[in-house]
Formats: sequence, structure tokens, C-alpha cells
Amino acid sequence: MPVNLTTPAAAELLPVAGVSLGTAEAGIKRPDRKDVLVMQLCAGAQVAGVFTTNRFCAAPVIVAREHLAQPDGIRALVVNTGNANAGTGEQGMQDARATCAALAGLLGCKPSQILPFSTGVIMEPLPVAKIAVGLPRAVANAVEDNWFDAAHAIMTTDIVAKAVSKQVQIDGKTVTVTGMSKGSGMIHPNMATMLGYIATDAVVAQPLLQQIVSEAANRSFNCITVDGDTSTNDALMLIATGKSGAVVDEANSAALQAVVTEVATVLAQAIVRDGEGATKFITIKVEGGRDEAECKKIGYAIAHSPLVKTAFFASDPNLGRILAAIGYAGVGDLDVDTLSLYLDDVLVAESGGRAASYREEDGQRVMQQSDITIRVVLNRGTVNATLWTCDFSYDYVKINASYRS
Amino acid sequence: MPVNLTTPAAAELLPVAGVSLGTAEAGIKRPDRKDVLVMQLCAGAQVAGVFTTNRFCAAPVIVAREHLAQPDGIRALVVNTGNANAGTGEQGMQDARATCAALAGLLGCKPSQILPFSTGVIMEPLPVAKIAVGLPRAVANAVEDNWFDAAHAIMTTDIVAKAVSKQVQIDGKTVTVTGMSKGSGMIHPNMATMLGYIATDAVVAQPLLQQIVSEAANRSFNCITVDGDTSTNDALMLIATGKSGAVVDEANSAALQAVVTEVATVLAQAIVRDGEGATKFITIKVEGGRDEAECKKIGYAIAHSPLVKTAFFASDPNLGRILAAIGYAGVGDLDVDTLSLYLDDVLVAESGGRAASYREEDGQRVMQQSDITIRVVLNRGTVNATLWTCDFSYDYVKINASYRS
Repeated sequence: MPVNLTTPAAAELLPVAGVSLGTAEAGIKRPDRKDVLVMQLCAGAQVAGVFTTNRFCAAPVIVAREHLAQPDGIRALVVNTGNANAGTGEQGMQDARATCAALAGLLGCKPSQILPFSTGVIMEPLPVAKIAVGLPRAVANAVEDNWFDAAHAIMTTDIVAKAVSKQVQIDGKTVTVTGMSKGSGMIHPNMATMLGYIATDAVVAQPLLQQIVSEAANRSFNCITVDGDTSTNDALMLIATGKSGAVVDEANSAALQAVVTEVATVLAQAIVRDGEGATKFITIKVEGGRDEAECKKIGYAIAHSPLVKTAFFASDPNLGRILAAIGYAGVGDLDVDTLSLYLDDVLVAESGGRAASYREEDGQRVMQQSDITIRVVLNRGTVNATLWTCDFSYDYVKINASYRS
Repeated sequence: MPVNLTTPAAAELLPVAGVSLGTAEAGIKRPDRKDVLVMQLCAGAQVAGVFTTNRFCAAPVIVAREHLAQPDGIRALVVNTGNANAGTGEQGMQDARATCAALAGLLGCKPSQILPFSTGVIMEPLPVAKIAVGLPRAVANAVEDNWFDAAHAIMTTDIVAKAVSKQVQIDGKTVTVTGMSKGSGMIHPNMATMLGYIATDAVVAQPLLQQIVSEAANRSFNCITVDGDTSTNDALMLIATGKSGAVVDEANSAALQAVVTEVATVLAQAIVRDGEGATKFITIKVEGGRDEAECKKIGYAIAHSPLVKTAFFASDPNLGRILAAIGYAGVGDLDVDTLSLYLDDVLVAESGGRAASYREEDGQRVMQQSDITIRVVLNRGTVNATLWTCDFSYDYVKINASYRS
């Protein structure tokens, strides 16, 4: 069950003027399920994004990157679930292009003005004909006040639809930022497709928009995964329609940056909270490091340790497993005698071993919680890093051993 | 259940002249269980070894390294299960030294002539008093023909005791090599303690013995784990008693190297076959790489992917998950269009996608086997690497969520 996570009410999701969303049931993998989303953008909307670095990146990722680079402007995004169109070779490229062409025909734009996204099973051919049948319906039912429905349409193994809205005053006007995400294969998030779409009605030039989305990704989606270890299909897109008239430029971008990062963080954390089989949400803070790289190395070593994760699942304060993970994280000159380990407010270890003040019942008390913070204080510098992860349960295995069936 | 693995009969384990083994039930973690092993070595025996690189390495590892470096010669090794004496700070160091002192008192040698080893729970104080009570019994019942009993005494979550003997003709004489290992936490082997002890009656000078054990470790134990990502307690020791009179030097070391590597490989693979919850033994061959590093990167990415491992558990040929792992392995200039992926003899993928000849039923047939080979042909060089791993089952979570209880 998702950890302290619920889908916002539809009324809490604010439309972004200039973005209309429509969905369809195309029967891509199974019937009676919304599996196609079309997001239509107003003329002049700017789009920026960050994509997976996987060498086996999916065909839609290659096509989306290519289309983003052309000068005509993006008029629509199309997302299908049920099939990742990854590991599909030349046929996959043709299928991604055919999907764009079909939607462009309906919208009266160029195929290169469409960004395609896919998520689902890898190495199966994309059923383009089914998608083509669904597209007219998704175009026909598009409205701006439809983020709730859209967030449901992009779910795969997600239990909870993930979306959030924030507003901020910029340039004397109210700016809306609404976003949604999908993804739940979180134990090694690198292999689960994470998709995120955030839109704002601010006026932002594309190069600045790209800076904002890159920074937001680094502080959110990239803190729930190993940097660079991304799935074949991961993408986070940021759209600025300009409809609010609020102009954001280099000089005043901090306010929009903050709210976009906040929205991205909510969406990224929601993916962890809905992690496959998750029963605990774990925040990992590594403090007092020499640089961000070593803080993240240690954080990821803890976050990816199956032994740590199963101990959290069992609510068992077998906290030596965390020390072991810190020790093999690859920080070669780490002095284990000067670091401290906390579980929430409980000092667990210092001076290379268990803290004298530590009592098993204190560790046990924290381990019973559903939200837990692991804090490692390195005492060798001034840099901090925060990551988020979840525990590792029977249900993770169950879900992933039966995903295709 | 262990995958195609059984303990050899006691009669198949050949004694090594100069090494006598005794065990005791010291009640370290629970009663009625052999948990202390003492290996006594004849005067003049040479000892070499490789140890964990974990920064939180256990106190016995620090002490064993220190004692190996002194010139008086090693007269005994002592192993306890039930407690790793890791993450135990200064007290842990005192406890490891106290264990050596207690045994040295019984054997009439210096404490620095004893090598201590511990495996079990991390961050709990070592119950030295219990061990001290067990030691006289383990010394009293020591005999050379006792490897079967010894291999059982070092087990923790192992289901099957792991040991093997080989013989080889060197210098006109029969040389015996007998070894044993323990370890079964294999999904991330870096956190399971793997201990291995191999003895031979050949005459080998210590520097050459060190070369032989390092090379053997690189071809065996280091192929079932991420290099450098080792537990707090990992150790592989090689003992040469010289009792056969067969002299091994730089010029003729190939024969002994080969048989030690073979013994180490059997012991290392046994750890995978007895992997916690394992139902499949998976050999990963990465061929045609530019260097060993890139072959191993790709091999480890596959071997550590929970999604790949759960698919094997389910016997589900969801083989796109292997492509995804290859893609994020971190080989930046990898051309996915020129590599090939095989499952045993079945060509699964080439040219960036599923092979035209691939049929689901062929993949399904191989996935049903208990021993499976994944072969990735990179077609960009001449270097190969082989790793061994296992699948990922409900039982892995069950075992590790309840290990302490």
C-alpha cells in the first residue's frame, strides 16, 4: 500500500491555461483501461525536458529529443502506457514516428511538432494501429480542467495517481504550476519508467525553461534514483504556455524555480511512496561531506542495499547493515571513527560502533514508523545531500515476478 | 532450496597434512549449534589471504591483517559464527585480540600467531567469554580428517555446507588442495560475509602464495560480487603446509594456481547456488568487450538488477529487462545496435531490438531451467568476463527480514 499518499481531489488540480488534456482506452495491453493521453499545447508554448541517459533508450525518447530540437514549436505530447517501445530497434523508431504522424494529421500540424512518450513492457512491438484508433477520442475529449483524469491515464503499476498544483505571484500576476507523474518500480528506480509532466502559464523563454527543469530534476527525480542509472524511457517535461502574461526571466526566475522544484519534489516523492510493495518511506540525509558526489555515493549505497531495505520492511533495527553500506559506498578515505548515524532523533552509532547511549527500544520505536529519516553525519566537510527511498517487501518480488502476466 | 548443490560426502574431503580442525558449540547466538572452528597449522606453514575493502571492516579483519604481517608465522585460525564483531569500535578490537590471546594460551604460541575471523550480526558486542569457554573443546577435538565437520561449523544462513578437494601432481608428488567456504546472502553479495579457507600440502613461499590466492580470488569470489563492494568481514585464506614436500616456485606454479583457482571457483559458485532464496543459478558471460572493466560493468548491472532477477524467479522471459540493464551499465559509448543477447543457445536480441528469429517459446524453455547462461556479445573487442549470480525470490525477503529473530 502506498505510504501516506493519496491522490489529490480533482478540484485541487488547477488547470493551466493553454494545456488541454484528453484520454482514451486504446486496449494497448488490456481492455477497459485508459492508456493514451494527448496533451495539446497552445501556439507559442515553450517546452523543455530532461531524458534518460540509458544507452538502450527507447525509440520515443530519441524521437522526442529530435523533435524538441526543431524550431517549429511543440503542439502536443502523446503518452501511451502498456508498451515502452524500447529495445525495439528500427521498427520501434518507425512506430514512434507513425504515432506522431497520426496525431499530427488530427491536429493539423507537422509530425515534428509532437513529442511521443511510452511506458510499459520493453522489447515488445508498439501496437501503433490501436494507438491510432484511440487518438481521435483523446483529441476529441480534451479540456483544460482534466489533470485528474490525465494522471490516471499514465499509470502502469502505480496504485495512486500522482499530481499536484501550486500557485505563486510573479510579475504581479498569479502563476499556476500543475504537474503529474507516474512510476512505482522504486527499489532500483533506474529500471522503472518515471514520467513527469509539469506545466505553467508563466512566460518563459526556452533556454531558461531548460535550466529550470534541469535544476528541478536534480533536486527531485534525480534524488530518488542513481544519477545516470535511468530506465529506457524516463522523461521529465516542463511546459510554459505564457497564458498568465507573467514574464519570467533570468533576473526573477527564483520564484518559478522554487515552485517548479517543489512540484517536482512532491511528484518524485509520490513515486517513492507508491513504490512497488513499499511499506516505509525513507529519507536519507548525508551531511558534512566534502562534496555532493561522496554524499550521494553513501546515500545511494544505503538506499540500494537490499539488506537495509528488508530490515526496514521487518521494522527490525538491524542497523549494522547501514554501517556496512556506508563502508562499501566507495568513499576510499572515509574515517568510520568520526562519523555518526542517526535514525530520526536517535543516535545509533559513533566512534566506529554502537553509541553508548543507544537503546534497542529506541531504534525499535523509530522503525515502527511509516516515515523514517536515516541521517549520516560525516564530519568532514560542509556539503549535504538528501535522497528518498522505500523499503523492500514480499510484494516487490510478487509484483515484479508477475508484471507481464 | 540450493540450486543443484549438495555437500560432498565426508570421505570426499581429503585431509591436508599439517592442518587439523576442531569445532565447538559455544552458544554464541543460540545453543546446540557448532559456532567455533579452530584450524591448527604445523610449524612452518605459510599463510596468505585477501580481505574485504569495506571501510567499516570488522575488528577481526584488522587484527588478522596485522598478525599476517608479523614474522613469527601463523599457528592457528579461529572462526566464530553468530557475531561479526563489525561496527563494534574499540571494544571490538579488544575482543578480537582477547580471542587470539585465549587461543594462544591454549596452544602455547603468541597471540600474534593467531588469525581471527567472525561472521554474523553486525554491531553487536562479541561474546568473548562464551568463545573462550568453547576454545579448549575445539582445540581438544582437532584432527586432520575433519573438513566436513569444519565446513558445517562456519555456516550461518547457509543451507548446504561448502567444501571440495582436488589433487594434482607437482614435482613428482601428489599435492592435495582442500577448501571450504560459507556465505549465502547473494543478491547483493557485498553485504554477506563470505569466508573461504583453502589449504594445500605443497611447499610455497609466502610471496608466491599471496600471488596465487589473489589471482584465484579474482577469478572466483570476485566474480560473484562487485569488485570492492565487499562485506565488513569477507576473507579468503590460502594455507601451504609443505608436508607433501612438493616444491612450488615461480617456474612451476601454474599447476597449483590452476587447482587452487578451480577449488576457489567451486566454493564461490557454491555460495551462489546456496544464495538466500535462490531458485536459479545464472552464469553471465560478457564477450567481445574492449577491456575487462566494461565487461564486468555490464555483467554486474545485469547481475544486480532486481527486475532481471525477479523475472528469472518467475521463469518469465521478460528479456527487455536485460537490455535495460546493459543500457544503464555505464558504458558511455556502447552501440546497442551492434551487440547480441543470448539466453543459453537462443539468440534473443540484435540490431537494437528483438531478433527476428526469436520465439517466446524458446525463451520460455530456457527460463524453466535451473542453470541458465546469459551471454552478451558486444562485438567491439576481444576481452571476455564471466560472473555468477542467482535469482531473487520471496524467500530472499523472508530470510533477510527475519535474520536476527
